[in-house]
Parts: sequence; structure tokens; C-alpha cells
Amino acid sequence: MIKAAIFGASGYTGLELLRILATHPEARVVEATSRQYKGTPVPEVFPALRGFYDGLLFTDPEDLGSVSSDIAFSAMPHGASQDVVPELLKKNRVIDLSADFRLHDKAAYNAWYGEHKAAGLLKEAVYGLPELYRKEIKDARLVANPGCYPTSAILALAPLARKGLIKTGSVIIDSKSGVSGAGRGASLASSFVEVSSGFKAYKVGSHRHTPEIEQELALAAGGSLNVRFTPHLIPVSRGILTTAYAELNRPLAPSEMRELYNAAYSKETFVRLLPEGSFPDISQVRGSNFCDLGLFVEGSRVTIVSAIDNLVKGASGQAVQNMNIMFGLDEKTALFTPPLSI
Amino acid sequence: MIKAAIFGASGYTGLELLRILATHPEARVVEATSRQYKGTPVPEVFPALRGFYDGLLFTDPEDLGSVSSDIAFSAMPHGASQDVVPELLKKNRVIDLSADFRLHDKAAYNAWYGEHKAAGLLKEAVYGLPELYRKEIKDARLVANPGCYPTSAILALAPLARKGLIKTGSVIIDSKSGVSGAGRGASLASSFVEVSSGFKAYKVGSHRHTPEIEQELALAAGGSLNVRFTPHLIPVSRGILTTAYAELNRPLAPSEMRELYNAAYSKETFVRLLPEGSFPDISQVRGSNFCDLGLFVEGSRVTIVSAIDNLVKGASGQAVQNMNIMFGLDEKTALFTPPLSI
Amino acid sequence: MIKAAIFGASGYTGLELLRILATHPEARVVEATSRQYKGTPVPEVFPALRGFYDGLLFTDPEDLGSVSSDIAFSAMPHGASQDVVPELLKKNRVIDLSADFRLHDKAAYNAWYGEHKAAGLLKEAVYGLPELYRKEIKDARLVANPGCYPTSAILALAPLARKGLIKTGSVIIDSKSGVSGAGRGASLASSFVEVSSGFKAYKVGSHRHTPEIEQELALAAGGSLNVRFTPHLIPVSRGILTTAYAELNRPLAPSEMRELYNAAYSKETFVRLLPEGSFPDISQVRGSNFCDLGLFVEGSRVTIVSAIDNLVKGASGQAVQNMNIMFGLDEKTALFTPPLSI
Amino acid sequence: MIKAAIFGASGYTGLELLRILATHPEARVVEATSRQYKGTPVPEVFPALRGFYDGLLFTDPEDLGSVSSDIAFSAMPHGASQDVVPELLKKNRVIDLSADFRLHDKAAYNAWYGEHKAAGLLKEAVYGLPELYRKEIKDARLVANPGCYPTSAILALAPLARKGLIKTGSVIIDSKSGVSGAGRGASLASSFVEVSSGFKAYKVGSHRHTPEIEQELALAAGGSLNVRFTPHLIPVSRGILTTAYAELNRPLAPSEMRELYNAAYSKETFVRLLPEGSFPDISQVRGSNFCDLGLFVEGSRVTIVSAIDNLVKGASGQAVQNMNIMFGLDEKTALFTPPLSI
Repeated sequence: MIKAAIFGASGYTGLELLRILATHPEARVVEATSRQYKGTPVPEVFPALRGFYDGLLFTDPEDLGSVSSDIAFSAMPHGASQDVVPELLKKNRVIDLSADFRLHDKAAYNAWYGEHKAAGLLKEAVYGLPELYRKEIKDARLVANPGCYPTSAILALAPLARKGLIKTGSVIIDSKSGVSGAGRGASLASSFVEVSSGFKAYKVGSHRHTPEIEQELALAAGGSLNVRFTPHLIPVSRGILTTAYAELNRPLAPSEMRELYNAAYSKETFVRLLPEGSFPDISQVRGSNFCDLGLFVEGSRVTIVSAIDNLVKGASGQAVQNMNIMFGLDEKTALFTPPLSI
Repeated sequence: MIKAAIFGASGYTGLELLRILATHPEARVVEATSRQYKGTPVPEVFPALRGFYDGLLFTDPEDLGSVSSDIAFSAMPHGASQDVVPELLKKNRVIDLSADFRLHDKAAYNAWYGEHKAAGLLKEAVYGLPELYRKEIKDARLVANPGCYPTSAILALAPLARKGLIKTGSVIIDSKSGVSGAGRGASLASSFVEVSSGFKAYKVGSHRHTPEIEQELALAAGGSLNVRFTPHLIPVSRGILTTAYAELNRPLAPSEMRELYNAAYSKETFVRLLPEGSFPDISQVRGSNFCDLGLFVEGSRVTIVSAIDNLVKGASGQAVQNMNIMFGLDEKTALFTPPLSI
Repeated sequence: MIKAAIFGASGYTGLELLRILATHPEARVVEATSRQYKGTPVPEVFPALRGFYDGLLFTDPEDLGSVSSDIAFSAMPHGASQDVVPELLKKNRVIDLSADFRLHDKAAYNAWYGEHKAAGLLKEAVYGLPELYRKEIKDARLVANPGCYPTSAILALAPLARKGLIKTGSVIIDSKSGVSGAGRGASLASSFVEVSSGFKAYKVGSHRHTPEIEQELALAAGGSLNVRFTPHLIPVSRGILTTAYAELNRPLAPSEMRELYNAAYSKETFVRLLPEGSFPDISQVRGSNFCDLGLFVEGSRVTIVSAIDNLVKGASGQAVQNMNIMFGLDEKTALFTPPLSI
Repeated sequence: MIKAAIFGASGYTGLELLRILATHPEARVVEATSRQYKGTPVPEVFPALRGFYDGLLFTDPEDLGSVSSDIAFSAMPHGASQDVVPELLKKNRVIDLSADFRLHDKAAYNAWYGEHKAAGLLKEAVYGLPELYRKEIKDARLVANPGCYPTSAILALAPLARKGLIKTGSVIIDSKSGVSGAGRGASLASSFVEVSSGFKAYKVGSHRHTPEIEQELALAAGGSLNVRFTPHLIPVSRGILTTAYAELNRPLAPSEMRELYNAAYSKETFVRLLPEGSFPDISQVRGSNFCDLGLFVEGSRVTIVSAIDNLVKGASGQAVQNMNIMFGLDEKTALFTPPLSI
């Protein structure tokens, strides 16, 4: 039985880890920290979990010394996570859900997020996208769990990038996310009344997930690759839909494109390639670890649409997938459940 | 041209006053205060109003001395409003949208809201429900604009109460409100993710609108009348639906009940009695000053369903209706517009 | 391995049975019928299920003869179900999710639903509410799965009814349901635009679940018991919140009431009694088989609030719970998963 | 007083025309046709309109001969509209809200919509986008009211196109629309349960608004201009947000771009250019005739975000704007009202 600790467990990714691990037959949450709720039983904060964690109290994250789990999930915000992860690594393998260890390049991190306080770990950290780095994840001490937008964008474009088909400068990532992506907390901008009848673009040309997407697509392409990325806010709780546009170096027949994606993903349980002419809907992956993909090509122009649940494949589900890999378990454990589509 | 000032104009009832008064041919907003946004142009806080109030800046509510309008709306929270209203009354007639001057009985106010600091005004204040107190409103110096829940409950039951038909102790008010009723502000409890798939009862047996409903139904009945009141939260921005149950002292035929309501409301522009077998939907009054009513009776048991927009007939629209009455205008001015039902 | 057949599998309760049974370790769906989709692979109709039922095609419900499963679920509408169930019973134990076998009294059925064509089975059918009839369900050949509204109302009031505490004629059931309760199909009344900003009462005084609630509360009380029942429509997909009001024959202290409910439900996995002052929210039971209960009493007047997922505890989850009981399995199998609260 | 007739008045654009014209001081609806509801009072179909059209009954569209209005709006679907418009033109000026007369090129119409039965009118029809064709609209006998997506896309890009700045082949229109765009009717695909937690792309590479956008941008650019257009479905009733991407022939400073858009739109009441760094939200134009625009440029790459209410500026509001122009009225009449942003 794997003993798991969750740092920063009172946010939405923390809740989601608790939800998923509640049904994991080989893992058990032994610690969940929350500065705000320390001393409070978990189900008092999350009534949905009543009956599952009745004996578990949130603990103070300061009590790091006491933690001796097999795996520690850090679900803290970027900046805060890098304060804690080095300490955690002394006693635990770590999966960090923040942005702190995703970028390999310290300069890039500093430019987008500010000075890194544990930059020495950047080289060691493994980017936790199993479909690309399964082998490296297996033996990793520190896994940097991918961002939600990057997961959707990279899975959409990696097969083309790896074949060197994408014309540089042509990539546009038009992404749409549910409101849970903004995290759990008091905020006018995320309030029901402000959001429920709206839809908007935000951080046009300046969202911090841009360098992460570029890093991974460039690594796949074996060269540099910049993207134009526009995030939008959908009035739903969960889900990201990414519409990715690119121009290719040469025309591609639809069947050829399909074969290319089939080759990349046919053995991947959590990537579902939709039939010709079908495109994904975030409702069809809700609450699940699936990434659905729809393909369109006309000459040398492609449009790929991907859908994930930002809290599952885009965060906590992928983290559990990584944990399963790290501990030699069936990757599907606790994750192979149908989406709650309605 | 009536000069109007709005105190506490950056909340939702303030926004709604600004929205409605923007098209009022006989009134003009000359001042809008907001501690939080003082110095900021109104459309920067409310982008929907761009083009309407481009020259108007929020001012500091401390600068009371400078205000000389014909009518002052106080859209501040209860407790804060009673600090300001006595001062405002020196230069303006006042419509107060808070709960501060609705209860005639000081002891009741103190019990439900805490010590009143301007209790001397309680007797003078007129309860601003035009369908009941039109004459008194006309000459009032201080109008206490009714609460949203009470408006829906009182309009539903007043015709029966006035006839002395309601059996004491039998009234149940099961009300459901949209989220804007909680006001504008940063709050986890009102955040999209927490609310959008939910529905719940809250403050069961203890909501502060209870004594206001009881006061008005008792006055209508000419005796005491207590109610059981349960508010619920609907995942919509606007709207209150109240399902009111009562037992009568004697059986009533559906036609008799209908006649009774017709007599009460047939001349009331903003109360729409639905045909037999039809019941209201909050979407059909959205953005409007209407109160829709549906009737059901079986023997001596009645069920009345009422629907209002909590921000319009339940707050700012009713306030403008009161202003129209106070200044001898057509009561419908700026208010007789079709609901935005979809 | 239990072989399960689902009749009428292309509606929402059918989808929900497929979703829940996909993770059931002791059962397997061997047949799913749909007149509309016969010959079509299940995941083509329900893309969320891609990866789970890839080899399963919807079959024609006419081919009844070919079905030899251990358990047949009928998820057909009332009226249609009674045509099929007698035939199914020749080869299978049956759980019927329609209203066709819930009322014991043929006259009551005829009055509310029209002439019954298999009334001979009414006496044999067991009302499938495990918290009340676990023993009878175990050996039943035909289980009548309870209605969604009745499940929420009966679990709320049964503990009081059984003690004979409820004053006759005093019960008001004010229920609110998500839109999935209206079933899957093309309908203007259920369309997004018509519903999403609305909230309304419907079938006031005339909903067909009334006699079902009355039957069970009367049986619990050992006498007759009529209720006033008003259903409402919430703009969410899933969930029922019932606010039940009653007067008791004598005053009850909050602690006494709590003890009474504790005694009734402390051993029931799927009924969660919330702490004093807490009331349920449908979001906290979403996607799960839980029924959450909140209690309020003042003198001899009680308000009980219950929340279920209408498609799970109100339909398909309860059906699987019944199947588990009928086949001697742990009642929680495939059902003990945390709600998807956000 | 302008006498207006509405053909196909029982859909959402019909409802919206009725809503807007209800407050128009210079126009009156004298006829509203609906095959489905003929003989029924308008408020029975649209309860929101109770009190506004109590005496108006839907009439049979077959009774064309009897119509003698000053202006006829055709709110019928494409295909059906071309059957009616030639007849209407005999007695009325006509504003057609369908796609039937928007494309100037018969071959293009035939390719995307099928054989045109009144192609002789294509040359005469004026494309009813006032910001581009105000003069032509003034004297037009037949105005082809623009499509919802095209309105949002063309207003976003026309200023750049007119200056010849857009690199051919570089335009990507990623649009997102509320559900009312699918029209009023019974449909599983538009049902609340299917849509409310979803977000999806549809008709990727094949939506019929593509040639309309291309026609107008090409006319503005004075050359051919093809676009890649992807529509998506937002779970809201109203609103279109378009994120338009293009590459320019040369780099543009943000201030230069802003001046260019200011020059184009500073005198346009209904186009609101947001300040630098601000981007539109569909909620801020809801229920109004405004089009909000946000600008972003980096080197020679631009991203323009536009927001409209698809039923107002994208349909019925624009139609009334066209009517106002055609009859020499102030263009803002009945349209200059603040959005219902919450």
C-alpha cells in the first residue's frame, strides 16, 4: 500500500487527488495539509467526501518533518511549491502539480514567473506527460506534472511535431477552459454572477503556459517552435477544449494524418482518437483522465481539436497516472472510469 | 429633470439603478459613490455601461455635504445605510434599498439585525411596495424599499391576507433565489465552481427576511401572522421564485380565488396574473419589473407561485417605481420594457 | 459474473446503468436494447463510453426471446415497461426503473397512469428502496425501482412516519429537480435556451409521483397520509433537492430528532446525516448514490432537506444497489465512489 | 408610425424583433406570422411579452396578400425565405434575416446552400451591415441582414482589410456562439442536459458562414481573401465571441493599430473599442446592439477579439438598426439601451 501525502490539499487539485485516491486500491492518503483548515476534518471542508476521509484532519504544512510517505503530491501554487519540494524530496518521491519544475530552462522560468529558488532541481525534474516520457517518469524522483493547457495542446500537436511536419511560426493555440482552472478561493472575477453568462479571452499573448507549450513542441520537433496562444474562459466548472491550428511543410491526406495519430496513440489508454468527422466535446471527458482528439486537414493546413478535464488529465488524474507508473502499477488503476458526461 | 444620487453604486443594485436610469427620460444620475472605486470612471468598473456614463466618476461617500440631488438612493448594506440616511435626508428625499428602515418595530430590528442607530426614523419610513402603499409613497420623505424575498412573498399572499382568509400558523414560504441576491464581491461561497451545479437551502428557519414578511402579512391580515420561510439558492444570476403554501379558513373555488386576485391586481401594470393552470418561470420576468403570479387551490389549501427579478422588482426597479410615484411621473417610466426571457 | 441486460438503454437512466456497470467487478452488460439505435455501437451514441463498450451494439428490443441474462433492467418509460416485464420474467429476474410496478393498488395506478396491462404483478413486485425493504428485495423476482422524487421524499420523512409522529394532512413536499429528470429526447421545453436562466414550478398539485410518496409514507406510518407535492425545475443536469415540511403530534427537541434519524440511518452507507445546522447541496452528491439529509425542528414543526442525484440514488444507482442485494454482493459494489462535487 | 410585419415570428429572432419593437416609439408590429401557432395570441407562446402584445395573434404566413406594412422582416430559415421575399417585395420594403440574399454570387450560394429560387434578387440586395454600407441601406428595397458569425468577424477585421494590410491565407476565425444560434425548436443536440456542461467545435472547415465572411473581407480588401473558420458552442443562451488571427504585410505598432480602428469606428455608436489591454466579454454586450472590440498586435501578427449578442447585433437588433436607417430615423432608436450584463 503506497502512502501518499498531499501538500496544499484544500484547493481543487487537492480535492481531486482526494477524490481519485479514495478509490485507489493500492494507495492511501496518510496526510493532507492546509494552512487555512489545519485541524479540521477533511469532510467538513469537502462535504462530498463524507464517508471517505472521516478520520483525516488537515495538518499544518509547516510540519514537514513528520511526513514520511512514499509519494508526496505538491498541489501548492507555483512559487510556494519550490519552497517545499526540496525538503519533501529528502524523504519522499515527489509529484509537483505546480509550474515550478516544468521548464528546463532557468532563464525562461525567471522571465515568466520570477526568480526560481530551487533552480538546481530543474534539470532533474521529469516532465510528467506519460504519453511522451513514460520511461523517464518510471524512475523519476521528481515529476513536474504538466499544466492543463499544455497537456491539451501538446497531445494535439506532438505527433506532427515529432515528424518535423509543422511549419515554424504557424501554430495557433486557441484554448478554452472551465472556471476551476482559476483555482479555489474568494474572487470577484470567478464569481457565479460575473462568469455564468459570459465568455471571454484573457491574458492575450501573455499567458504563462506559452513557454511550456513551446518547450515541449520544440523538443518534439527537434528545433525551436513558437506558438500564439489565447486562453478563454468557459462558463463550466471543468474542461479544456483546445483548437490548434498549424501549417505543415507539405500537404497531408486525411488518411495519412489519421495513420500518424494512430501510430502515436493507439496503445495509449487515455488518448481517444475520434472517428473522421467527429470532434470532441469537453462533456464527454468530464471527471475522467481521457484526452479526446479530432482531426481535420485540408491541403497543408491542419486543425486539431482536443478535450480534457483540466482537473483530471490536466492535473490530478495525470498525477495519479504518474504515480502508478513510478510505482510499477497498472497505469489505469483508479483512473479507468467512464466520464460523467451529463 | 430629476437629479439622482446613488450611494453604494458599485454593487449589483447600484449597477441595476445605473442601468435602468440610463434610459429614464426624466431623471439623470448626477452622483454615484463607491469607497472602493472612488475616482474611477463608472464604465471601467462596469464595461456594459460604456457609452452611457463615460463622464461619470465614482465619488467618495464621505463627501456627503456636496450632494444636492432631488432623490438619493442608498444601495449600501444594512447597518451602513442607517449611518448615511439621516444625513442624506437633510438635502434629499431618500429611497433606501437596505433593510434598515423596513421594520416598523425597533425591537424586531434589534433582534434580527442588531442595535439600530437611527431608530427615530422607523416610524416615518414608508414601506415601498407600491401595490400596497402607493398613496403613502407619494408624499414620503423616506421610502424603505422592500427586500427581494418579501416582495415575492407579500405580493403572493396579500390578497388572501387582506380578506382574513389565511389560517394563522399555516403559511410556508419556500423561496428560491438567484446568486446576485448575495451581492457583488469576492466570496468562495458565491464562486462559479461552488454554485453552478448546486442547489441548496440555507439559513433554514433563520433568514432575516422572515420578520419583514410577517410584518406586512400581519398588517394586511389585521392581526399577527407567523410564517415558516426557507430560502434556497438557484444557479442563475437573477430571479426569485416563491412557492407559498397556506391553509384558508374556508374552502375557496378556483374561480373565486381568481376573482380575488383579479380585484387586487388587475390595475397593477407590474403584476401579471397568469391564466388558470399556468405557473410563472423566473426567465419570463428577467431584467424586468414584473411580478408574475400563478394560483392553485384545492379545498381550503392554496399554493401561490410568484416570480420576480430580484434585482428589478426585488430591488432597483421597484426603487425607480417608487421614485416615479414620489415625483408624480407615470409609474411605468423607464420600467415598461419586455423581459429578456432568453 | 452476473450477466445483465438493459432494456431501453439509450435514455439517461440507460446511460447511467452502462456507466456504473462499466466498473462493476461482478457484473457485465451482455445486452443493451434501443429501438432507435439498433445495430449502432454503444459508444457512437454515447461518446463518453468509448473504450468501455466498444464491442457492444444496441439491439432491437423485439428480440426478447434471445435474452438470457441473470438480471434484466427495464429502463423503458412507464406503460412500455409493463409490456415487456412479464416476458422478461420468464428468463430473468427483473429490476424495473419505470413507474409501472411501484403502486400496490391497481386502482391508484389506473387513476394516475391509465389502465394497467400487467396488474397481476403488482402484488408480487417489491418496492426497491433498500433502506426500507432490504429483506424483501433480496429474494424478489421483480423489483420496482423507486421514482426519483419519492426516493428523496421518503428517505426524508420515513423515520418520523414510522414513529407515528406526523400529523396527518400537514406534509408539504417542495421538490426541485435537474433537467435530466425529463429524460433524453428532442424537446423545446427541455432545450438549453428555454431552461438555462429559468426556474419554475410545474404540475402543481398533479404530479404522478404523489401517490407513490403517499403509499410509502402511509405504509411507514401505518395509516393513511396525504401530501401536497410541488415539483420544480432547476437549471442543472442532475440532482434533486427536497424540502419537506411537516407538523408533528408533539414537540421534538433537536437532539431527539437527531437520535431518531441516527437510529434509522447510522448503518446505511448511502444515507449521510449532516451535522446540526448543515443542510445538503445537490452538488455534494452528484454522480453518487448518496442521499444527504439535513434536519431542522422548532417546536412541533420540522423541515427536512434531502439531496440525491436523481439519476443515481434516484434511478440507476439504486437499481444497481438492488441488484447487489439480490445477488448477495456487498451492497456498495461499484457504488461507493465520491461524488463529483465540482 | 411605421407598420412592421414579421414573417416567421415564433423563432428566437422573431421573439427578439418583438421584444425590441415593443419599445420603438416610431414603429408598431401589425402582423406576426407563424405556421405552428397561427391563431394563438403572441403572449401565450412568449409569456415574457404578456402586457405588450395582448391583442396580437399569430397569423398564417400563407395569407401574404393581406399584408400591407411599411416594412416586412423575414425571420424564416434560409430556403424558406426566398420563397416569400419576392412576394413581400410587391407591397413592402424587406429586411431578410436569413442567409438567402447575403451572397452576391449565385454560384457560391448554390455551392453552399443549394439551388437558389430567387437568384434574380441577389444583385439588388444590400448587405445590411450599417458600419460598412449605411448609404446603400438607406435606399434599399431589400436588405440582407448579415449572419451572426459574419457580423462579429467582419467588424473585427474590416479596418485592416480595407487598408490592404492582411496577408492572404493567414486569417483564422475562431468563433464561439451561444446556443440560441441554433434556433428555437425541439432538438436533442440543443437540449439542456447535452449542452450545459459541454463545449465543442462543430462543422470544422465546413460552416456556411465561411463564404459570407470571405465575400465581405475580400470586398473590403479589394481582392480575394480566404479564411479558416471554426465555430464552437458555448453553454450560454446569447453571445458570440470571435477571436480573429491574421498576419499583416508589415509590422504594426499598437498605437498605429488603435488609430486605424479609431478612425473606422469612433463615430459608430454600436462599436465600442476597448482600451489597450482590455478584451471583450459576451456578458457585457448581452441583450444589446453593441459590438465590443479588443486589439492585440505583436510585430506583424494581430489578434482581434470581438463580442456581440448574436440575437441583437447578430440578428434582430441589426435588423431594427437597418430599418431605422431605411426610414430616416435616428439609428439608435429603440436600440440604445445598456446591456443586461448580469
